[in-house]
Amino acid sequence: MKLEVAILGATGAVGQRFIQLLQGHPWFEVAELVGSERSAGRRYRDVSRWVLDGSAPESVQDKIVLPLGAKLRSPIVFSALPKEAADPIEMELAAAGHVVCTNASANRMVADVPLLLPEVNPSHIHMVAEQRRRRGWSTGALIANSNCTIMPVVMALAPLREFGIQAISTVSAQAISGAGHPGVSALDILDNIIPFISGEEEKMSAESRKMLGDFDGTRFEDLEAVVSASCNRAPVLDGHLVNISVRLREQPSLEAVRAAWDGFRAPDPVPSLPSAPEHAVLYLEQQDRPQPRRDRMTGNGMTTTIGRLRECPILGYKFVALSHNTIRGAAGCSILNAEYLCASGYVEVFADHPVPNRQKASLASPV
Amino acid sequence: MKLEVAILGATGAVGQRFIQLLQGHPWFEVAELVGSERSAGRRYRDVSRWVLDGSAPESVQDKIVLPLGAKLRSPIVFSALPKEAADPIEMELAAAGHVVCTNASANRMVADVPLLLPEVNPSHIHMVAEQRRRRGWSTGALIANSNCTIMPVVMALAPLREFGIQAISTVSAQAISGAGHPGVSALDILDNIIPFISGEEEKMSAESRKMLGDFDGTRFEDLEAVVSASCNRAPVLDGHLVNISVRLREQPSLEAVRAAWDGFRAPDPVPSLPSAPEHAVLYLEQQDRPQPRRDRMTGNGMTTTIGRLRECPILGYKFVALSHNTIRGAAGCSILNAEYLCASGYVEVFADHPVPNRQKASLASPV
Amino acid sequence: MKLEVAILGATGAVGQRFIQLLQGHPWFEVAELVGSERSAGRRYRDVSRWVLDGSAPESVQDKIVLPLGAKLRSPIVFSALPKEAADPIEMELAAAGHVVCTNASANRMVADVPLLLPEVNPSHIHMVAEQRRRRGWSTGALIANSNCTIMPVVMALAPLREFGIQAISTVSAQAISGAGHPGVSALDILDNIIPFISGEEEKMSAESRKMLGDFDGTRFEDLEAVVSASCNRAPVLDGHLVNISVRLREQPSLEAVRAAWDGFRAPDPVPSLPSAPEHAVLYLEQQDRPQPRRDRMTGNGMTTTIGRLRECPILGYKFVALSHNTIRGAAGCSILNAEYLCASGYVEVFADHPVPNRQKASLASPV
Amino acid sequence: MKLEVAILGATGAVGQRFIQLLQGHPWFEVAELVGSERSAGRRYRDVSRWVLDGSAPESVQDKIVLPLGAKLRSPIVFSALPKEAADPIEMELAAAGHVVCTNASANRMVADVPLLLPEVNPSHIHMVAEQRRRRGWSTGALIANSNCTIMPVVMALAPLREFGIQAISTVSAQAISGAGHPGVSALDILDNIIPFISGEEEKMSAESRKMLGDFDGTRFEDLEAVVSASCNRAPVLDGHLVNISVRLREQPSLEAVRAAWDGFRAPDPVPSLPSAPEHAVLYLEQQDRPQPRRDRMTGNGMTTTIGRLRECPILGYKFVALSHNTIRGAAGCSILNAEYLCASGYVEVFADHPVPNRQKASLASPV
Repeated sequence: MKLEVAILGATGAVGQRFIQLLQGHPWFEVAELVGSERSAGRRYRDVSRWVLDGSAPESVQDKIVLPLGAKLRSPIVFSALPKEAADPIEMELAAAGHVVCTNASANRMVADVPLLLPEVNPSHIHMVAEQRRRRGWSTGALIANSNCTIMPVVMALAPLREFGIQAISTVSAQAISGAGHPGVSALDILDNIIPFISGEEEKMSAESRKMLGDFDGTRFEDLEAVVSASCNRAPVLDGHLVNISVRLREQPSLEAVRAAWDGFRAPDPVPSLPSAPEHAVLYLEQQDRPQPRRDRMTGNGMTTTIGRLRECPILGYKFVALSHNTIRGAAGCSILNAEYLCASGYVEVFADHPVPNRQKASLASPV
Repeated sequence: MKLEVAILGATGAVGQRFIQLLQGHPWFEVAELVGSERSAGRRYRDVSRWVLDGSAPESVQDKIVLPLGAKLRSPIVFSALPKEAADPIEMELAAAGHVVCTNASANRMVADVPLLLPEVNPSHIHMVAEQRRRRGWSTGALIANSNCTIMPVVMALAPLREFGIQAISTVSAQAISGAGHPGVSALDILDNIIPFISGEEEKMSAESRKMLGDFDGTRFEDLEAVVSASCNRAPVLDGHLVNISVRLREQPSLEAVRAAWDGFRAPDPVPSLPSAPEHAVLYLEQQDRPQPRRDRMTGNGMTTTIGRLRECPILGYKFVALSHNTIRGAAGCSILNAEYLCASGYVEVFADHPVPNRQKASLASPV
Repeated sequence: MKLEVAILGATGAVGQRFIQLLQGHPWFEVAELVGSERSAGRRYRDVSRWVLDGSAPESVQDKIVLPLGAKLRSPIVFSALPKEAADPIEMELAAAGHVVCTNASANRMVADVPLLLPEVNPSHIHMVAEQRRRRGWSTGALIANSNCTIMPVVMALAPLREFGIQAISTVSAQAISGAGHPGVSALDILDNIIPFISGEEEKMSAESRKMLGDFDGTRFEDLEAVVSASCNRAPVLDGHLVNISVRLREQPSLEAVRAAWDGFRAPDPVPSLPSAPEHAVLYLEQQDRPQPRRDRMTGNGMTTTIGRLRECPILGYKFVALSHNTIRGAAGCSILNAEYLCASGYVEVFADHPVPNRQKASLASPV
Repeated sequence: MKLEVAILGATGAVGQRFIQLLQGHPWFEVAELVGSERSAGRRYRDVSRWVLDGSAPESVQDKIVLPLGAKLRSPIVFSALPKEAADPIEMELAAAGHVVCTNASANRMVADVPLLLPEVNPSHIHMVAEQRRRRGWSTGALIANSNCTIMPVVMALAPLREFGIQAISTVSAQAISGAGHPGVSALDILDNIIPFISGEEEKMSAESRKMLGDFDGTRFEDLEAVVSASCNRAPVLDGHLVNISVRLREQPSLEAVRAAWDGFRAPDPVPSLPSAPEHAVLYLEQQDRPQPRRDRMTGNGMTTTIGRLRECPILGYKFVALSHNTIRGAAGCSILNAEYLCASGYVEVFADHPVPNRQKASLASPV
């Protein structure tokens, strides 16, 4: 008996990743697919154009797509909606008692919505209690994950918080899948780099400071750090690579920085969640890594790989970090958040759920 | 009657750019092609594999390739040699009376070798007089141009020197042609970014400070600025794009920075040299430019395009700059240097040369 | 005094090619730009997103875009409209007295509309007289050019008609620009080939037989040949490459085939038209050519390059041919058609036009 | 207790695929790695540059690479040697008692060397008995697999043999990994197609006729069919796509062709071998499939996908087929051949091997 989940925006590129990653999930089962008016009432196979490798799983092909606004029965709702469609439907579903885990940017900076990343800010999950109190919700909740480009930055910096992060400078090379499908025109990106992604640099600053900040039980306090982000689109399918420079108050040695990464472990029960990778961050020794194509699938796409740690003559430290943007940076992160919410008791129906002592079963394999 | 020039490393990718750009040059004529032992004694058409678009010009196809070390008759020698082959042959040719304009990195940081960029450091040309004095050379000289990745950085920063450059942070996305042919394996770079280029980051710092520095008549004084460079290879054919952040002592307004670029003009006679573009730097208004594929050929590949000037919360200013790496960043720059040397009286034989008052004839068209 | 021309669909990718190629044209001047309802009434610079290299010429940037259906003053109208928009507006403009040269597929197979390719079927131009007679038009005319993928096939086969073409088998690798902008999603084509292009294979057969067929003064007679086409999309920006096998009744030697290509010349006045390339077809000796990126700009994009002629054990002969799909295969061909119509007296106003004895001035340079 | 295997050419691209695919193999264990003189005597991690995704398995990283010519203890030897290196070493190893399964082309057309493809020509395996008889070998054998581009052709045509294959026309779009590493220069293939691969078209004809032919117990009889092959390199990482036209004597309906593919099953024990995919060939219904990136990993890279079956006006039938060139077309096929040799009793030591009744354990996962 698995827990039923719904996917909003199920025909889009991120919606497809949800479907793919949830195949064979030990706790969750895709029960409801929600799409646009154009798709509603028709079979998934007839309205979706699968853009990931291979084909859509047979288990969803004949499901009838539900319209946005349909009453759902699944306790957990994953949202892969575009920003405009997400508001207010995500809030309405949360108010109706669903635990909504969203990739949309619409509500990320709302004061009582956590930008949850279980390895990085596990305590932020308890904003759900506050959220329910403030809004008078009983079983519902709205939990967001961050912009996909922040992911490698925040994952790589989380272990360095102990050194006092003061300034963060990032320059990204972002994959085309970050723009969805059809997204980037081939005529724009082949043999090219586009040094601009609308709205992205602003998100990088606001969201990273919220994610790396504190939670005092009732409100978030942003990390006090200056963030400068430059965002570029590159002809890469998946995987956002970021060149990062950082100023650390404690001025640790390079070895101490390495040790912080190597020793980084999330608190229990995060490491034993089904979608948690063995290593949240993994430092690669080769001098020319990480590379998007070769390293994005590390840890089934859930591990952030880091490399090239060296001195920065200006800020002190620089290195390169990479995360898979539609797995760790989108659908995979939402699923991990949902697992963490279950394990933390925030999904009421899960309390009686016959998953044997909620232990880690096996990783969902995304390929 | 044109001046004869020789090309060292004529069969390689940069050697081919020399040949291409010198087609129809108003002052120079390709007279001698010099290649490796493997090529020497054979016709150019039989030993070269043209990697640029189209085919090699008919005018060079039947020339017999000369061996490295052959006695040359051309007063001007362009070198597209790999670093290892350049030393000591370039010095020997200069000692033998040739004006050698080189792309090789071998001698760039030698104390009396100018890293010449006519729009940026025209006074550095007079190190040739000092070079001749020190080394006892009469008509010979050795002039280098910089690493191709520095080009967009130095071109974009030259107009900002008046504001007091204190710190420069760069992250590049470099074209594969920068590695020559065969250079980068397609298996390494398709759907990928490689965040490492051997030796490149070190060059960025040393060469940019030399180029932007002063010349007091006998020696160069480096710019006093901190430089942090991160270099990445991208699946782009030509054009190095650099995200640049800079700290300026005078803290000018963004408008003042724009005005410095818009008003930037090299001193005479540089703007009237055959290969000088109308604009050494050109600011593009569109929010998503410059882009390598769309902007690299601006000014026949000799203009550095700039865009996205905005505040950097850490260093104060950030923007994007782009130069064509094998034209402005290599062969085109060497040719411009040679023109400038002619116009400045450093190529003796050119003094009697019947180019009508050395005026700008027409741009060499690289396509 | 140049002849004014209008461009329908001026903001699209092919419309932009028209604007680019007509820059500095010796006979024609872009006077009117026609766009969709969304664009009409606004300046070109404000409604167009230039997707070709560089920027739109300044001469068109401030023109006010006219709505489809506006009364035009230009005697010649170039159409880059999508199929759906072309019908019936192109016919209406022809009926109103304009000479309409179109890239749209809407009217290509209409019985009295020539699929004109001046080097291949120059006699087809005289269908204009018949067209005017049948339809009661005085100065108007509607002339089409073919699908861009047929271009390399028809150009390469035209010189072989003398040998009796019986069967044609083609497999294409087509550039993404053939689908316009935004056209092909980067997520679909990077690291991929798509072995299907909607409607393309049917066009290949019908249009090639019409183009290579005869014209008896009143109607076209298709070439009696079997055509099998397979169409594939490849991650190439411009240039359609086609592997062609052909059965020839006369069974000429390979040398005779080569000689037919080498000796191929269009009848006067075609070779002296401004946009006619020096070689309509050009055989490349290298064993690995033609290649899209390296050979598409041959003859300013108007030359079809051919290579790899060898025996086919099934049909007798096989080879590879390449044409630039948006120049020779679209805008450039329409312009050449218009020039040929002028030179043949089918553009009335051109009769008194002060272009000195209609001689070839200079090629329009597309870059 | 697994059977030990050796890999010749273990540091190359195909050698790495062997290592990757043999990870966790239920029968075989990589015991010996053999490399060039440059690598011999050093640890694998120090001499190999892993070009596949991720990193080399830890289990091989510290193995000492053996020199070519070293005495080996493994009963099975996989060869990923370049052609020049393969001859005569493969023959020598077979003579010394090893069962050698090779990807090299050196011995493919030798009269008593089977070009084995278990689903296509399982009876060819018995040439091993004849080979041993002729050459006086006891336990040794030399079995080849075909050129990687033939794979999709032969796999797709095998089920159609019953209809009488008379003529085969193929045009390929081949992945860059087919050329090994570094192989194809990025400067040659980005934004390009290369319509030539040295020696490839000749192999296509000879090898496909041998593979699809008969074996009468002592010698092979080639399929009597005319084959015309055209080979192109495309900017695709993995997966050879082939447009195929075929003439069939029986002139079956399209439905009958489909039925032949759908009903195709290899004889026992092939389907239960560890590396045999569920479907040797799989027809895809979507009109734009197969596509290299999206379909190459079907059946862990061992399934040949087919699509777009339609009438060919010249030969009768045409369709598209795709195989992963370094899995099904190289290492994966050799491994399947070795499994089939074990299951057929041609690997002596395997007879006593404690693999429980030689049943299918699980597929080796290549990712």
